[in-house]
Amino acid sequence: MSDQPNSAHLEGLKTFLRIPSISTLSEHKPDIRRAAEFVRDELRAAGLTGAALIEGEGNPLVFAEWLDAPGKPTLLLYGHYDVQPPDPLEEWISPPFDPAVRGDDIFARGASDDKGQTYILIKAVEGLLRATGRLPVNVKFLIEGEEETGGEHIARYVAAHPDRLKAGAAVICDTEMFAPELPTLCVGLRGIVYGELVVEGVGQDLHSGVYGGAAPNPLQAIAEILCALKDRDGHIRIPGFHDRVVPPSPAERDAWARLPFDEDDYRSREVGARELTGEPEIPLLERLWARPTLEVHGVRGGFVGEGAKTVIPARAVAKISTRLVADQRTEEAERQLKDAVRAVCPRGVSAEFRTIHSAGPSLVNPDNPFIRAAAQAMTQVFGKETVYIRSGGSIPIVGLFDQHLRIPSVMMGFGLPDDRIHSPNEKLHLPNFFRGIQAVSRYLEQVGGLSA
Amino acid sequence: MSDQPNSAHLEGLKTFLRIPSISTLSEHKPDIRRAAEFVRDELRAAGLTGAALIEGEGNPLVFAEWLDAPGKPTLLLYGHYDVQPPDPLEEWISPPFDPAVRGDDIFARGASDDKGQTYILIKAVEGLLRATGRLPVNVKFLIEGEEETGGEHIARYVAAHPDRLKAGAAVICDTEMFAPELPTLCVGLRGIVYGELVVEGVGQDLHSGVYGGAAPNPLQAIAEILCALKDRDGHIRIPGFHDRVVPPSPAERDAWARLPFDEDDYRSREVGARELTGEPEIPLLERLWARPTLEVHGVRGGFVGEGAKTVIPARAVAKISTRLVADQRTEEAERQLKDAVRAVCPRGVSAEFRTIHSAGPSLVNPDNPFIRAAAQAMTQVFGKETVYIRSGGSIPIVGLFDQHLRIPSVMMGFGLPDDRIHSPNEKLHLPNFFRGIQAVSRYLEQVGGLSA
Repeated sequence: MSDQPNSAHLEGLKTFLRIPSISTLSEHKPDIRRAAEFVRDELRAAGLTGAALIEGEGNPLVFAEWLDAPGKPTLLLYGHYDVQPPDPLEEWISPPFDPAVRGDDIFARGASDDKGQTYILIKAVEGLLRATGRLPVNVKFLIEGEEETGGEHIARYVAAHPDRLKAGAAVICDTEMFAPELPTLCVGLRGIVYGELVVEGVGQDLHSGVYGGAAPNPLQAIAEILCALKDRDGHIRIPGFHDRVVPPSPAERDAWARLPFDEDDYRSREVGARELTGEPEIPLLERLWARPTLEVHGVRGGFVGEGAKTVIPARAVAKISTRLVADQRTEEAERQLKDAVRAVCPRGVSAEFRTIHSAGPSLVNPDNPFIRAAAQAMTQVFGKETVYIRSGGSIPIVGLFDQHLRIPSVMMGFGLPDDRIHSPNEKLHLPNFFRGIQAVSRYLEQVGGLSA
Repeated sequence: MSDQPNSAHLEGLKTFLRIPSISTLSEHKPDIRRAAEFVRDELRAAGLTGAALIEGEGNPLVFAEWLDAPGKPTLLLYGHYDVQPPDPLEEWISPPFDPAVRGDDIFARGASDDKGQTYILIKAVEGLLRATGRLPVNVKFLIEGEEETGGEHIARYVAAHPDRLKAGAAVICDTEMFAPELPTLCVGLRGIVYGELVVEGVGQDLHSGVYGGAAPNPLQAIAEILCALKDRDGHIRIPGFHDRVVPPSPAERDAWARLPFDEDDYRSREVGARELTGEPEIPLLERLWARPTLEVHGVRGGFVGEGAKTVIPARAVAKISTRLVADQRTEEAERQLKDAVRAVCPRGVSAEFRTIHSAGPSLVNPDNPFIRAAAQAMTQVFGKETVYIRSGGSIPIVGLFDQHLRIPSVMMGFGLPDDRIHSPNEKLHLPNFFRGIQAVSRYLEQVGGLSA
């Protein structure tokens, strides 16, 4: 195995990136299938067995395995071949589906999220199989095509086939490094409860002149509920909501404080805000990674067109979500939120929270042997001590693997914070691509040293 | 002049109501013109002079006059020939532009607002001219066709032609009686400042998982601003906002308390609310007529579609308005609102109120001789003492007549609270139509007894 960039790997990645497999747009269904077939063919060519599309409602899953390492652990390798839409197109320097290398980066939709990282997994396994004819561990690939649209096919499949997917740990290549050159493992994710706050006043829209001062206004009620659920300093005021929140350990807090992180730089460059918000007494990374949030995403109802309409709407709906952290439980959080909404509902209206979807938080113990092995592999390849971070976002597949397969997920990410995933000019840092292949190879070797 | 219903009047009204002169829909431009020409022809046939359309940007005004009563006062008679759209069509029992008499009511779009009431003015003048060959006062008709869309043509015309419109008072037939059979004069209107509350956070939409807990959310900021500007009990918390608010006199309060008004009936039947809102220590009619309000009409920004999107929007805009009461001044109220928005703006965002339109409040002294004469005329025709009410709404033309012509407006309304103006099955109570003609005739005679 060479340490030098392999030009065939780069060409293969470009071929993958040229397929506009946008899962949110139905006109790209043929491209979705082409991308799934590309992954299947790559897995087959890499030397895996049983490479096949798993058809079902939704976009095909791609499955392949290599199980000839008896007595060795099994890893379930996850990635996704679908991508976000590229709009706004005019902001791309080079076309989103015509990958272009500029400097050390390759620019294309999906370069970082997640084709580049999925390809890292495939090429690592292929490299080991080509070099030695075998793998140090058993592997099962499960690559999906609906990650950007909800992943319902994989959710059903994981729930229905725990035996086929049985493994000691999952490896997820869909996250990022904390900073360039800094080997990173993500050990915690926030969960989510997302839904609608439905507020109903009277049976019909009313004229705000004739009835203003007497009629309940559902939009004002939404404002009052939002302000009652969260104060101006970002403290969530839902009774019992923080009871199960586990604070980071002193060691974790110390480690986070040592991360190369400039809060002012983050504020001005990454967020672009004049001032950051949230609970002032909680350090920033802890706010993002280890505290629940409550956010409003949109408010429907009344009049928002050009000009003026003096309406008190009969009804209004706010899209809201709360992010959960360990050890909050989704059902309990949902119930607490529903109860709180009812308790703070103003006069004259009814208010109800209706869940759309939810996913639990996850937190992996870094002392888990699969995590320790990953940290060692990353440190060896990148030449720096691996840092443990969490993410404020939610990756539902981690919760599904935990719930149905009872396995931890090792989140080895090779993206960078400035990869502009979901935005124009998405890119992947090519040194991370090549080192990622090395790091995953090294990881498989490390895990091969563990007992199954 | 007969006290009996005149079937020719009813037939004429039906012809007027058959014209779908919807000013908010451009495909009805030809109908707008037909309605204007109908009014012009009616005024000409009634015996007025100079009946003509006044063309300009927007829908034509209709003007006509009779000035052969030297030494007598002049009245400016106002109405509008345009109507609201009829949707939802399927809820009409009979078609909106095919007037149908059922019981004592005539059903059609515009029956009450405002073709029926405009026709009352025309038929009253026509009746006097036919019966006696002359009028007891001088009159000028000014009938517009944009009342439902902003009335910009008439606003420009009034500002530009104060001499042509010179009069002692205006008569506006576009309001309602407090209760059936109860002669009513409206002596006060609320003003309005309507605009947008623009809140800006960062330069782009952000992922609420990755950034929730640090990034400012303009939608939450709007909620916080709305709650800071008005408390849960409906008290507006804008510094200085109530300084000029003139409470109703003890006599006015007593008169309002004697009005035939059942608050519980109003709540359940007219508003359809489980509970009314607003300042609890202020009686209901005073809240509606003599207190300023602050209402939110809609909120734009973020995601309101089907399903879930975890976005913290870069920017959000709320449509808000405040109703003003005497002696508040629009410019001052606007400034107070702008200052208050800035003062309560939460961390991390900027917030600004931008005015779209405004109109001052108006309050006429019932001791004004033109008002007293109207009360006497109404009392004589309806056989009950005339009550003085106010309206929570705003009629900008009243402010324009006040500002540019320096004349009071006599708001003699013959609509009823259940006329369903702007809604399906709009109707006019026919006894009010015929008595309205008598009342306006009697009023012209009363005013003829005043010195010019």
